[in-house]
Amino acid sequence: KVDGDRLWDSLMEMAKIGPGIAGGNNRQALTDEDAEGRRLFQHWCEEAGMAMTVDQMGNMFFRHEGTHPDLDPVYIGSHLDTQPTGGKYDGVLGVLAGLEVIRSIRDLGVRTRRPIVVTNWTNEEGTRFAPAMLASGVFAGVIEQDFAYARHDAKGKTFGDELERIGWKGSEKPGDRKIHAMFEYHIEQGPILEADGVQIGVVTHGQGLRWIECTVTGKGQHTGSTPMRMRRNAGRGLAQLTELVHEIAMKHQPAAVGAIGHIDVYPNSRNIIAEKVVFTVDFRSHLLPVLLAMVEEFNARAPAICSDLGCEFSAEVVGQFDPPAFDAALVERVRSAADRLGYSRMDIVSGAGHDACWVNKVAPTVMIMCPCVDGLSHNEAEEISPEWASSGADVLLHAVLETAEI
Amino acid sequence: KVDGDRLWDSLMEMAKIGPGIAGGNNRQALTDEDAEGRRLFQHWCEEAGMAMTVDQMGNMFFRHEGTHPDLDPVYIGSHLDTQPTGGKYDGVLGVLAGLEVIRSIRDLGVRTRRPIVVTNWTNEEGTRFAPAMLASGVFAGVIEQDFAYARHDAKGKTFGDELERIGWKGSEKPGDRKIHAMFEYHIEQGPILEADGVQIGVVTHGQGLRWIECTVTGKGQHTGSTPMRMRRNAGRGLAQLTELVHEIAMKHQPAAVGAIGHIDVYPNSRNIIAEKVVFTVDFRSHLLPVLLAMVEEFNARAPAICSDLGCEFSAEVVGQFDPPAFDAALVERVRSAADRLGYSRMDIVSGAGHDACWVNKVAPTVMIMCPCVDGLSHNEAEEISPEWASSGADVLLHAVLETAEI
Ligand SMILES: NC(=O)NCCC(=O)O
Ligand SMILES: NC(=O)NCCC(=O)O
Repeated sequence: KVDGDRLWDSLMEMAKIGPGIAGGNNRQALTDEDAEGRRLFQHWCEEAGMAMTVDQMGNMFFRHEGTHPDLDPVYIGSHLDTQPTGGKYDGVLGVLAGLEVIRSIRDLGVRTRRPIVVTNWTNEEGTRFAPAMLASGVFAGVIEQDFAYARHDAKGKTFGDELERIGWKGSEKPGDRKIHAMFEYHIEQGPILEADGVQIGVVTHGQGLRWIECTVTGKGQHTGSTPMRMRRNAGRGLAQLTELVHEIAMKHQPAAVGAIGHIDVYPNSRNIIAEKVVFTVDFRSHLLPVLLAMVEEFNARAPAICSDLGCEFSAEVVGQFDPPAFDAALVERVRSAADRLGYSRMDIVSGAGHDACWVNKVAPTVMIMCPCVDGLSHNEAEEISPEWASSGADVLLHAVLETAEI
Repeated sequence: KVDGDRLWDSLMEMAKIGPGIAGGNNRQALTDEDAEGRRLFQHWCEEAGMAMTVDQMGNMFFRHEGTHPDLDPVYIGSHLDTQPTGGKYDGVLGVLAGLEVIRSIRDLGVRTRRPIVVTNWTNEEGTRFAPAMLASGVFAGVIEQDFAYARHDAKGKTFGDELERIGWKGSEKPGDRKIHAMFEYHIEQGPILEADGVQIGVVTHGQGLRWIECTVTGKGQHTGSTPMRMRRNAGRGLAQLTELVHEIAMKHQPAAVGAIGHIDVYPNSRNIIAEKVVFTVDFRSHLLPVLLAMVEEFNARAPAICSDLGCEFSAEVVGQFDPPAFDAALVERVRSAADRLGYSRMDIVSGAGHDACWVNKVAPTVMIMCPCVDGLSHNEAEEISPEWASSGADVLLHAVLETAEI
């Protein structure tokens, strides 16, 4: 078993960097806080005897040598970046549990044949720079690096410039690595494990996603002196499309979700009818046909809704991945590790996207999940117990040791 | 008649300060650009022989002396501040036409018995600091000065601090003035005069307004991993209340308008269900019972709509005035001035709020309007013709001269 106290202490230490306003974290990708978190992680990994390589996307790789350095390594990874109002565990748990696995292996004096590489993937959250899982996407060859560099935040700063600015742009070409297997350990971010009183989620599949950035354009007019019949109110376009997204997702219950979380209104003045609203629709399903059907229905109905309001509608997909299915052999290995340790477990579908979804395209991959309180995530109040954290890390340790061959 | 070219040149000169991004202006209240606009106006007024007084709200008063300095002066005023995406004429026309009246009077060598005071009222637009017409409201004694000073912008900067910072806080107590009559000349900001081909709008009444700042609070949760049935989506509250506002306003056609122009979403991340949405409802009618009925219906229905979504609703009135009726004698004086000059005219109700609405509480007041292209205002594309501008200024000159007694 891992040292659960040490893992928890590291989680609490990391959470001091980029504190939020309500007990959580704001350590968004490529901010100064991200850079500081990376330095602390680097310090800990080097202390644990690992050697760092950074690629051109800022992905950090720490190598723990195997007795057969020529064998393809086993990877453990997740992300250290957070939402603007993020929790202390989303992503961070998977990275620091990777570190804890190495610390424990050293404590135990075990040697594995294969090297083990602990990874921090850049910009997983996708709030500052859409899409989410940007750098693992480039690593997996599904996103172009030039496209990634040109992604910009709300202030117009690009991913490429900001990566350079914080000093974490490495030289290795992303994806230029052989991976024997990759493990990602993550909090569930949903309510199922806690509700069922189960300690370990064995992730067999994930939901696919489409992020559709919509622009509804009306006319900026005086809210007082413009007669109702002359209005082209983009705010009503937002309103009706918000309800449309909900209606479409509800048609496919329980196999789908849909919402709008990002909304920018222009010029955003109390006495100007909304001229333009830009917002992002988030549709997900673990069934590809359902995902595609939702997008198709939205695209079919949205333009007419807007034109009935005298508004224009345009849309651009700014994030997408299809539902992933994880490696059957690794899934089975996680199940048996949990059984061996005496932890209750169940198969689960990941509701969220993860770096593992992209890495799964280029290497056998699997995910392990632990419960989180009330299924709450992407909220500063996100919470887990130290026991939940360490149980999953124990499973991770066992499954990794088996895969890296003692 | 006034010198229309000179008036137009001044309008174009002022429009160079705080240029917008699409041909209009962004010279919001108490910004550096506002300060610069004030300095230019001061320079012009002093050149025209007027003496400045500034009150504690930053209202600027320029006095052109009468032959009987002890008589209560005639006022001409409007505002130099603009919307964030404002036009070149909204407010500015009324201030610079006041200056042009004095310039013309001097050119003509006429003397009036009563002094004439040209005024720039601070923070009319209300975008940066709600409510609109803040400083004329304090002047008229309907808004407390301490309340006004504490109003803050989106960045938390207060009106009081910003007024001090830009150097335009005077010493005179607001309202400490006798006003024989006040004239405000303004663009219509609506489509009626242009559609009817009429040069002069004689404003008999105005709409009343209620600005209701609403907060809908749900829960910030993951858009992917939170089941639909567990969501408390504040974005859906916004959506349904947007349509509610529209529905309520449509019940009272053509006597009412309603819309939401200001919306802030928190935490505003693509993969976080909206935790909180803050937005301002703008309801108006020239009939007080209609205005009150709309507010009552909204307040009655909004909480239940939100609680059905698992969200909380709270509301605060951040701007309000009842429908004003302007002074009958001054209205008649404007009508006859237009007739004397041979300009077509019609009675009109002001759709927008104006400083004149507040000053009307403490002195006989009236407004004159000129058409604007497509009724468009609060938009950088706001446009008027030089002829429209000068016709209204001619009527202003005649009505003011008659009131100030030649
Ligand atoms: N795990 C996680 O929250 N990832 C962010 C990408 C997503 O929205 O699913
Ligand atoms: N005239 C004008 O646009 N005033 C701003 C206050 C309002 O919204 O009516």
